[in-house]
Amino acid sequence: MENRPDDAQIAAFEAGIKLGALYHQFTGSPLNLQNADSMERAIAESISVQPFVEEINVNINRDMIATKLNDEFGYCELEGRMLTVGLQVIHGNTRIRASMTYNQERDYPLMEINEVESLS
Amino acid sequence: MENRPDDAQIAAFEAGIKLGALYHQFTGSPLNLQNADSMERAIAESISVQPFVEEINVNINRDMIATKLNDEFGYCELEGRMLTVGLQVIHGNTRIRASMTYNQERDYPLMEINEVESLS
Amino acid sequence: MENRPDDAQIAAFEAGIKLGALYHQFTGSPLNLQNADSMERAIAESISVQPFVEEINVNINRDMIATKLNDEFGYCELEGRMLTVGLQVIHGNTRIRASMTYNQERDYPLMEINEVESLS
Amino acid sequence: MENRPDDAQIAAFEAGIKLGALYHQFTGSPLNLQNADSMERAIAESISVQPFVEEINVNINRDMIATKLNDEFGYCELEGRMLTVGLQVIHGNTRIRASMTYNQERDYPLMEINEVESLS
Repeated sequence: MENRPDDAQIAAFEAGIKLGALYHQFTGSPLNLQNADSMERAIAESISVQPFVEEINVNINRDMIATKLNDEFGYCELEGRMLTVGLQVIHGNTRIRASMTYNQERDYPLMEINEVESLS
Repeated sequence: MENRPDDAQIAAFEAGIKLGALYHQFTGSPLNLQNADSMERAIAESISVQPFVEEINVNINRDMIATKLNDEFGYCELEGRMLTVGLQVIHGNTRIRASMTYNQERDYPLMEINEVESLS
Repeated sequence: MENRPDDAQIAAFEAGIKLGALYHQFTGSPLNLQNADSMERAIAESISVQPFVEEINVNINRDMIATKLNDEFGYCELEGRMLTVGLQVIHGNTRIRASMTYNQERDYPLMEINEVESLS
Repeated sequence: MENRPDDAQIAAFEAGIKLGALYHQFTGSPLNLQNADSMERAIAESISVQPFVEEINVNINRDMIATKLNDEFGYCELEGRMLTVGLQVIHGNTRIRASMTYNQERDYPLMEINEVESLS
């Protein structure tokens, strides 16, 4: 059976777009403890100008930065595993709460839908 | 009412992740008519190693490249509007067909879900 | 005749690395007039943690943003032509002043060395 | 003493631009042993359309890919340390041979000028 997508599926799709975009736009950015604040803010504000984004929170793990700093040059790169992102997207009558969090056991920056909320 | 996502919503989310990733990883790449083939192939093969991707087709519009080539330097950049992408993602019992296509009227590289197919 | 590079050549090389990195890391970022400030700051602070960077200034052209905003969605992307960057790099006894500026006649975001200063 | 750059300094600057661009455009790309070939080719061909590039060779370390593959999902990302790049740039009467190679002791993907050759 084939169907056109409903609001919840479109909202989920839009949430995925934002997390995929965020990850592949900003990972690789030169980073140390001095510029983590401005990087978090730029990422959150940049993704929030995209369609259907109601709210986004971006946190970069300072402990991981400290561990990853190159001894000689004093910086590292933004890696997916350093990022904790909370995202709310609304499309039509559906709000999706999604997140990216580093899953240590699976050694993977896991993106997932946490909640599907019907607004009507 | 709040719920956990079902297969179709997760499949839609995963499709979105792939298109967002593709866009923000590869746009900006130096491009002319000589390397469009290898760029298409690298993009398709790279995104296809990600989870849940069943099939992906990537086409870069040669006419747009020709129009955008810098007169002096003979190249341009891969832009979102040059890309036509067809993507099939499977999660659980759901297949999602999604695409990115340049929408001329809206002047926007539109990502959308074309079909939600129940496999059970 | 073949030679190892001197300080001025290494400084020039390092300046080039920074401008190439900046361009290909951050262009493509979702942008409108609301987040231009945080994007400028994040770019400048990120590139400044790389080796040999003495100073960097990043400006994003607001008029170009305003022109490029999508009518329906109210945002655009950071493009190379929107960026004006001034960069000072020091290696050994040489300071290089380099820049990226949009050259309208050539329709190209031109990167160039403006000055080579011997510090000894 | 301040001066305008000479050919060798401009060639060095251009070589740096290419390596910085390559690194920040393509690292982060989804990767496993199946798509390493097409990724190498796309990177080499893309950078070679930029101005002043005479030759470029790009190699991605398969052993590192194999080590980095996620157990569950079977892929990893292109990292700077996986890349070995050889680049020749010509500007005016100077050819620069530059490279990016992973330096294990310093745990750093080192970009450097290997040779400055005067062509006149």
